[in-house]
Amino acid sequence: MGGNVKKEDLMINFQTSPAEYNHWRLSVEGCVATLSMDVQEDVTLAEGYKLKLNSYDLGVDIELADAVQRLRFEHPEVKVVILTSLKPRIFCAGANIYMLGTSSHAFKVNFCKFTNETRCAIEDDSRHSGRRYIAALNGTASGGGYELAIACDEIYLVDDGNSAISLPEVPLLGVLPGTGGLTRLVDKRRVRRDRADVFSTLAEGLKGKRAQEWGLIDGFFPTSKFQEAIDARVREIIDGDITQTASGVTQTVSLPSGIKLNPLEVSTTPDGLEYKYISLKLDREQRYADLTVLGPDADLPTTPDEIQKLGASYWPLQAYRELDNALLHLRVNEPEIGLVCLRTKGSINDVLAVDNTLATNKDHWLIREITLNMARVLRRLDLTAKSFFAIVAAGSCFAGNLLELLLASDRSYMLNDPDVEVEIALDELNGGAFRMSNRLTRLQSRFLRDADTVAEILANQGLLDAEAAEAAGLITFVPDELDWEDEIRVAIEERTSLSPDALTGMEASLRFAGPETMDTKIYGRLTAWQNWIFQRPNAVGPAGALTNYGKPTQSKFDFKRT
Amino acid sequence: MGGNVKKEDLMINFQTSPAEYNHWRLSVEGCVATLSMDVQEDVTLAEGYKLKLNSYDLGVDIELADAVQRLRFEHPEVKVVILTSLKPRIFCAGANIYMLGTSSHAFKVNFCKFTNETRCAIEDDSRHSGRRYIAALNGTASGGGYELAIACDEIYLVDDGNSAISLPEVPLLGVLPGTGGLTRLVDKRRVRRDRADVFSTLAEGLKGKRAQEWGLIDGFFPTSKFQEAIDARVREIIDGDITQTASGVTQTVSLPSGIKLNPLEVSTTPDGLEYKYISLKLDREQRYADLTVLGPDADLPTTPDEIQKLGASYWPLQAYRELDNALLHLRVNEPEIGLVCLRTKGSINDVLAVDNTLATNKDHWLIREITLNMARVLRRLDLTAKSFFAIVAAGSCFAGNLLELLLASDRSYMLNDPDVEVEIALDELNGGAFRMSNRLTRLQSRFLRDADTVAEILANQGLLDAEAAEAAGLITFVPDELDWEDEIRVAIEERTSLSPDALTGMEASLRFAGPETMDTKIYGRLTAWQNWIFQRPNAVGPAGALTNYGKPTQSKFDFKRT
Repeated sequence: MGGNVKKEDLMINFQTSPAEYNHWRLSVEGCVATLSMDVQEDVTLAEGYKLKLNSYDLGVDIELADAVQRLRFEHPEVKVVILTSLKPRIFCAGANIYMLGTSSHAFKVNFCKFTNETRCAIEDDSRHSGRRYIAALNGTASGGGYELAIACDEIYLVDDGNSAISLPEVPLLGVLPGTGGLTRLVDKRRVRRDRADVFSTLAEGLKGKRAQEWGLIDGFFPTSKFQEAIDARVREIIDGDITQTASGVTQTVSLPSGIKLNPLEVSTTPDGLEYKYISLKLDREQRYADLTVLGPDADLPTTPDEIQKLGASYWPLQAYRELDNALLHLRVNEPEIGLVCLRTKGSINDVLAVDNTLATNKDHWLIREITLNMARVLRRLDLTAKSFFAIVAAGSCFAGNLLELLLASDRSYMLNDPDVEVEIALDELNGGAFRMSNRLTRLQSRFLRDADTVAEILANQGLLDAEAAEAAGLITFVPDELDWEDEIRVAIEERTSLSPDALTGMEASLRFAGPETMDTKIYGRLTAWQNWIFQRPNAVGPAGALTNYGKPTQSKFDFKRT
Repeated sequence: MGGNVKKEDLMINFQTSPAEYNHWRLSVEGCVATLSMDVQEDVTLAEGYKLKLNSYDLGVDIELADAVQRLRFEHPEVKVVILTSLKPRIFCAGANIYMLGTSSHAFKVNFCKFTNETRCAIEDDSRHSGRRYIAALNGTASGGGYELAIACDEIYLVDDGNSAISLPEVPLLGVLPGTGGLTRLVDKRRVRRDRADVFSTLAEGLKGKRAQEWGLIDGFFPTSKFQEAIDARVREIIDGDITQTASGVTQTVSLPSGIKLNPLEVSTTPDGLEYKYISLKLDREQRYADLTVLGPDADLPTTPDEIQKLGASYWPLQAYRELDNALLHLRVNEPEIGLVCLRTKGSINDVLAVDNTLATNKDHWLIREITLNMARVLRRLDLTAKSFFAIVAAGSCFAGNLLELLLASDRSYMLNDPDVEVEIALDELNGGAFRMSNRLTRLQSRFLRDADTVAEILANQGLLDAEAAEAAGLITFVPDELDWEDEIRVAIEERTSLSPDALTGMEASLRFAGPETMDTKIYGRLTAWQNWIFQRPNAVGPAGALTNYGKPTQSKFDFKRT
């Protein structure tokens, strides 16, 4: 890191750990974690900007994402997470404007997507693991700063006559709040739309009293009583939690101890990356990649205690952490790769055995966290702006959790050769463990037309060869051995010849049929509008608001409404 | 019309009638209407392109929108509408590519919005008025041609060895199908997402057998039997309809006769438009407009028979048709106007009296159509990319149906002056008659946080002065008489100084809290992606696919995925 690499040439590393954090402090006392923001303004991912006033770039958010992820595995005892700042009078000034102003369109879009996923991960932790996130705003939270707060369950603001919350993107920068702020205003906090309109056009934002009246925060306290009030609220939550679980006292008395998330080992080859369970091979000429997931070994442990001892090297955790890292690498560091062929290698029975262990022990905290992490990684795949083809060839193991890779793909090819055993299989985890952002399973999403099909398919959990898989509606194409290689080669050539922008828009539209949720609104609707605005001359042209931010020159708009 | 006006200087007239149609034939026989497309290739809205192969520009779609609207009022006896083509071997080739290629970004976006509204109007007719739309594809339906078909209830394709359906936008043009095609594929017809992916990337599309297997059409017939098969299906629907309504035979025996939709009279002034009930005054310097709706006269008729005699001049029909026309004018002909101040003038009691008539007779076909039209116009307002402020001043009549204008506004200002009577009022129509695209009422959308509020407000249907209206949560700001003028002046100045693009994205995000429907997905998600792609160099740059369509040069892409 440090400030002397051109942003476009940067190879971004998504791995970090608390000992390496530059911008956050993570401290855990009993069942309370405190995540304190203290951004080092000179420690930037690229040159050309300083991270003043706790503003952030992708490097800052990679640390936040890591901290939230570690809390779930390393600190299962934590019940409350306080987000606050170590800087006086400022909580967070949001994404750094100069960083945005000097970034390429593609980088801005990927940056926003990652920060959105981090905020959704906070809400995922809150929803599924019951951890309560408190934004303790000891100073002003503007833009992305307030958007981080609104991803928490509760927001408290210091009342010092100066500190405010605001979304100044529209009035100051001519863009939208990029991490779900508008959507969460009206859909999460359900602020009245006219008040949301006023708030989102008010550069200076609102202070304590009105902010609370309008539902934008949950309380405000004078400086001298702020810490005390936060402490009281934390105690209230913890006490309430103990009361609520009185019947199962063991849970709060003997707190579970976590497992350590070790760094992933990855070796870089001239044309790809090699992890233990993930192999990524790039064909840069053809602009596609083969991503192969190696299935689990046989005879993995089946009890939570043994799994806890195995820790981060347990296949479902390690393989999906590696997959997550590979997806982020593809997104940000390999923008020209337009298509990823997903392949698997291993034994179907071994995958099904692992799933059986996960299903049997689903109420154990660690198994729950492992499964929820798999679900998050699969959602990261759904939201990746690359085409995905699943290639079901000899030796593959698209079963159970790995079948989700196939169901997440834009289409699938399965070898139909009577002389070779090529099969896929479902198990009960396909029935609900890995929900998409729209809360549907990938099977439900696939068979919207006939919900009964899902039940039938799940009831019939045997091995399916190509013809059976096609008949069940699980596979797009089943070429025979004579056509297999040619058909896939042509499909790859055709796909990678198409406009990458049109494909991104098309895939975003086709992948999320059915209901919408706050998450899909943020990823689909808000992101698309933001992408549009991010290219408009009124934002990024020579006289655009984003370009002109902080300069003595005034931005000039073409006032035609579109 | 005719081809010699530059598109950007064009004043587009949204009024037409069957006698004036250039591109469609509307014929009605008994309870069957046939809408036949026969586009005159030289009759274009602007110069520079020819409408070959039943391709369309905005002028063609204005006629289609008019025909669908007239069917509802002028031909209530119609049960089935057949959409077909008078050209051999071609149903419709979709939006004209050369027209798109030479249009400004803003025009393309407005064109797509209007064509989307027309297709949603077809579905609105089908859903609420029970008319069945049949796409009789006697030839190839590509792009917007298939999107028009998929807006119908049933699709039949001729099997002549050549005719196909297709969405070639992604593979050929580097843009998305712009009128809901992708969304309707997976959300309306619930085509499996991998098949939708294949179909949407296949320039040549699919013919009868596979198209039916994949759920893209409902049947296919050889040329020699095509007309016969369509006729048989129409008879089946009509017979089924008579059987279904056997208990209320009168409905099918004595078919209601329609009312005539007269042309709206509108006079153009140097700075606006004057209709009978709508006055539009533009302040081009300040880039805002005052749009005033004049309320109804006292003592309007209260029985369906009298109203039917009054016909198109009945206030709820005429005023909302005028409003619709004014909104379309503002969108397309006045792009620099960024803010519309909505005002009303008249008697609250007279508005409530009209609503009472509408509510009392809601099961009468004409009253139902009048109310559904009001709902559509209000949805057109929700979807208009301008800011709306409701200004509740002395003499205004924001009550019942006109209160929806206030609820549809981004914010509202109400004079709080004890010496002047300024009030608003609700009535039962606010409880469900005018649903937004997301199927919520505007009250539900406003009070998502507390659903009980809606019931309480509706139960308490008296007049509300400024303080009561504010306390009920219905008004944003209630300045007193000293602040009134200044506060509104400053609000207008501030709003019109902001980036028009950021406002469009912000308003689209804040107006539609809560659930999403196919319509909101089309207007929000798909439109935003399309807007994004419509500006990308890969589509509209010198080497972009849209720019290069039909030229000997090959399009060149920047393959970075965003």
